[in-house]
Amino acid sequence: MIQSFIAEGGPDAGRAALPRLRTELAARGLDGFYIPHEDEWLNEYLPACAERLAYATGFTGSAGAAVVLSDKAALFADGRYTLQAQTQVDTELFEIVDLVEVGVGAWLREHLKAGLTVGYDPRLSSPDSLAKLEEAAEAVGARLVAVETNPVDAIWTDRPAPPRARVTAQPEVFSGESAADKRARIGKAIEETGADLAVLTSPASLAWLLNIRGGDVPRTPLPLGAALAHADGSVDLFIAPEKVDDAARAWLGNAVALHDEAAFGPALAGLGGKTALADPASAAASVFRALEAAGATVKRAPDPCILPRACKNEVEIEGTRRAHLRDGAAVSRFLAWFDAEAPKGRLTEIDVARALEAFRRDTGELVDLSFDSISGAGPNGAIVHYRVTEPTNRPVGDGELFLIDSGGQYRDGTTDITRTIAVGAPTADMRDRFTRVLKGHIALSVVRFPKGTTGHQLDVLARMALWQAGLDYDHGTGHGVGSFLGVHEGPQRIARAANAQALLPGMILSNEPGYYKTGGYGIRIENLQVVTPLADVPGGERQMMGFETLTFAPIDRRLVEPALLTEAELDWLNAYHAAVRAKLADRLSGADLDWLIAATAPI
Amino acid sequence: MIQSFIAEGGPDAGRAALPRLRTELAARGLDGFYIPHEDEWLNEYLPACAERLAYATGFTGSAGAAVVLSDKAALFADGRYTLQAQTQVDTELFEIVDLVEVGVGAWLREHLKAGLTVGYDPRLSSPDSLAKLEEAAEAVGARLVAVETNPVDAIWTDRPAPPRARVTAQPEVFSGESAADKRARIGKAIEETGADLAVLTSPASLAWLLNIRGGDVPRTPLPLGAALAHADGSVDLFIAPEKVDDAARAWLGNAVALHDEAAFGPALAGLGGKTALADPASAAASVFRALEAAGATVKRAPDPCILPRACKNEVEIEGTRRAHLRDGAAVSRFLAWFDAEAPKGRLTEIDVARALEAFRRDTGELVDLSFDSISGAGPNGAIVHYRVTEPTNRPVGDGELFLIDSGGQYRDGTTDITRTIAVGAPTADMRDRFTRVLKGHIALSVVRFPKGTTGHQLDVLARMALWQAGLDYDHGTGHGVGSFLGVHEGPQRIARAANAQALLPGMILSNEPGYYKTGGYGIRIENLQVVTPLADVPGGERQMMGFETLTFAPIDRRLVEPALLTEAELDWLNAYHAAVRAKLADRLSGADLDWLIAATAPI
Repeated sequence: MIQSFIAEGGPDAGRAALPRLRTELAARGLDGFYIPHEDEWLNEYLPACAERLAYATGFTGSAGAAVVLSDKAALFADGRYTLQAQTQVDTELFEIVDLVEVGVGAWLREHLKAGLTVGYDPRLSSPDSLAKLEEAAEAVGARLVAVETNPVDAIWTDRPAPPRARVTAQPEVFSGESAADKRARIGKAIEETGADLAVLTSPASLAWLLNIRGGDVPRTPLPLGAALAHADGSVDLFIAPEKVDDAARAWLGNAVALHDEAAFGPALAGLGGKTALADPASAAASVFRALEAAGATVKRAPDPCILPRACKNEVEIEGTRRAHLRDGAAVSRFLAWFDAEAPKGRLTEIDVARALEAFRRDTGELVDLSFDSISGAGPNGAIVHYRVTEPTNRPVGDGELFLIDSGGQYRDGTTDITRTIAVGAPTADMRDRFTRVLKGHIALSVVRFPKGTTGHQLDVLARMALWQAGLDYDHGTGHGVGSFLGVHEGPQRIARAANAQALLPGMILSNEPGYYKTGGYGIRIENLQVVTPLADVPGGERQMMGFETLTFAPIDRRLVEPALLTEAELDWLNAYHAAVRAKLADRLSGADLDWLIAATAPI
Repeated sequence: MIQSFIAEGGPDAGRAALPRLRTELAARGLDGFYIPHEDEWLNEYLPACAERLAYATGFTGSAGAAVVLSDKAALFADGRYTLQAQTQVDTELFEIVDLVEVGVGAWLREHLKAGLTVGYDPRLSSPDSLAKLEEAAEAVGARLVAVETNPVDAIWTDRPAPPRARVTAQPEVFSGESAADKRARIGKAIEETGADLAVLTSPASLAWLLNIRGGDVPRTPLPLGAALAHADGSVDLFIAPEKVDDAARAWLGNAVALHDEAAFGPALAGLGGKTALADPASAAASVFRALEAAGATVKRAPDPCILPRACKNEVEIEGTRRAHLRDGAAVSRFLAWFDAEAPKGRLTEIDVARALEAFRRDTGELVDLSFDSISGAGPNGAIVHYRVTEPTNRPVGDGELFLIDSGGQYRDGTTDITRTIAVGAPTADMRDRFTRVLKGHIALSVVRFPKGTTGHQLDVLARMALWQAGLDYDHGTGHGVGSFLGVHEGPQRIARAANAQALLPGMILSNEPGYYKTGGYGIRIENLQVVTPLADVPGGERQMMGFETLTFAPIDRRLVEPALLTEAELDWLNAYHAAVRAKLADRLSGADLDWLIAATAPI
């Protein structure tokens, strides 16, 4: 199995680490230390050796930070993780602080005293995030200083070795564009900004640009490393040599010069006189400081690979369609299994997650999950970022809703789908809420929009039907998705928050409105969809775009209240189910096929 | 009459001014000069003495800028004004440059040479806008320098005298809150930011805070001046003494110390050691420099009056309701008159604007128009910022649409309404487009939304029906409106562009989707509406808000295609018209009343 259900982290970690860390800090003459969740690549998923925040505090959420002072310490987590933080961290040792509402800067302003010196590791934070902390420290007469080596690493005696997964080729049959062509166009883009080269520290950019994948972090096939991409299309790649075998070396070709990771710092130091593009959102402060120390001119601009990577080409889209049909068949088999097994009353959340993973593995093409499945029964479904572990594992109960959000990494595409399933007879409220979420999902599926439209404009479409009933959900509606890369990928996004990035053809986004009744149940309906230029509307004047749905698996008809749907919405649902049946029928057989036919019958 | 229809500006202005300005610049050792549209108060409407851009170039648009170099000059205008700029400016002398797509900075970067010195008046630009220009000049080795006196003023021999309109009281019966209470709460807000005082340079803030109005600029009752608002609630007001008579002096009271305008600079110079809040969006660079030179600590933050001013209290809302009924009756009488006169074929756009103004003046309470009426027949209606003048005046033709966007300034409220009227039989296309615009207007009228919702989230509701037909409009959907103050007022806005300001109870916004067929016709439907907390929806969980419509006047039923409306939309239209009839019937009589009854009949 890929997914583990062992509860990680917990208060013992911080209890053990904190006194040792304080001793280490004292020995270095530091009055405190700042520990962000981020690693050297400012990644979402970290290799085990970079789980410094978990080691020092016990908190394993996917975002957060800690500050350790000599007499107090704080763990910062956002609203998604405050409950989890309360259970994973010893609250006698760590104050739990809201990362968004309060923030590290405000906490430092309140608790630092004049003359104190707090250390930070400049490899683990963007210059922008550090600037706020520096400002806070200065405001009270304290000082933030960069450390040469990380004190958490110094006390981490059983620290796992860094990952050394082999780099593999992502051939053109999946990537749709040769690495040479990508290097040439990125080189040209770099030249057009007036820079000589770009410093690329995002592993996803390396993967996309060089048509390679890796296995250094869980759930995303990233090769950890860094690169200098030059205006002439050549690339210096800094990566542990044991990851690159002869085949990979041949695949990368002569225009990609290979260097050990350790050579990255000296390479930056040699850029005096050059103009180097670096992205303050994805490169660490240490990169900017090294460039400045070298006498390079630093051009702060978005990583030039981000937008080209987000706009999938026709080969990538075709691959994603294929991956979704394969994945949709596996999910449908799973849903058929669930409908047969759940009424027997013996399933738990872990059983369900295991079964779904098994159906995906049965395809023979699953490389990894794209994230740990969120498998929530009843009230656990209302916890938006729930991750089931043995201590929280809940039986699937009659009369409850079951929410499962999951996805697969296939060589030809990355999937992400959420379905909410009725176990036994749903209540009228459940059907009402589910149908409102479905109305939002449909509105965001059928919308037609002009060039220049951004995600913050469309978000309301997914919420309207809930708003009419005085309801809402507290998460974004859509995130970007990669092509056999990250299941969360920018710059596009559909959310309330402002986002300046226009939606462009080829961008893949999730469409996942939800509703959560705390202590009761959770509902979410999620398909992926790709931005598509539309043929001209007769009489129309603007080039319009729309979405093509990529995800095909039944939506639970037992939770739909047809009286709440307009005729057009009902037509959408029936057409969607007809498409699900047409696309998946020849991939299923026997009882699974019978189930599919019933589950996709028109309403 | 208030509105003038004389064509202003024109190429002769620039032809006369440009050589004289160049001589003046040469005498001062400057190689160029930057002339923004803005005045010392960064106002939308300028007093005649501050129309420097019009004097130097001939361009009279409400936004823009010019740069004059020794051998070339450029006039910058945004998309709304590019056509107007072509006709008002001698294009042999001025290159017309897109203010948004290119911008002043990019133009400077291309045309400045190393060693050149370009002057600017630091009283006329915000520090943020100047920073971009300075960066551009530095990038090519040129220099931007502040001038002590404006060279345009130096060559402007017949420059009008500065306005000296009397300050009048805005009593609590209209303002709903005493100036003493406002000063106390703004003082507290200033204290909470850690500042000792706020520098207020926005005349609208002075007007709101001190419960006064003025008459120094057209269309908005602003008193030009500046103030220091102190944390203890006292205020130093800097204003030309002839504007403040004994009654106004008594109204302002002892906590407001009066000073001549000329004392403002020295007062800033005396703030050494203080912490002064100043708003980089509304205060000029000269203010920031004076504070820095004085040794004050500058706190850059929004003008503390902006948000309280935007959230109208119950007295202001009630006044606005009253103003809208009065205005709606005048507009209805006008619409009845138009329907009777237009078919005779003798009306022109100017006749129509004059008639509407006369109906408003007939109320006996009109203080000013809230802006010059946009009165456009046929294709002129498709010019979004059309302002009719004698040379462009067009007859009202049969089979055309007529668009009229207008508003009044009343002591109890500011109005703004757009109606589109069919003259003779409209085409099927006109009815289709009108009905789609109406669907958008209705969607934005009935929406229910949770706390924290911003205008960029709601904008799409007004566009959806047009998008479905491949159509759109290129302007925002809603702007804030003042209470006997500016008809355009922030910080709230409903538009595609990101806007971080949540919609709050008491904020008044326009709801004005449109459609424009270039060379054909223009459609816009505009009502004002106020944000209102809603009673809890049964079963709902969130505090929701909605809009109360403030504007009451018939929407042309002849342009509505009922087949395109949902039942709920048709219900809205019929209910709106029933309300129009109920609210206005006793204000009309005879033929006007007969017209109203017919115009508000259910469909």
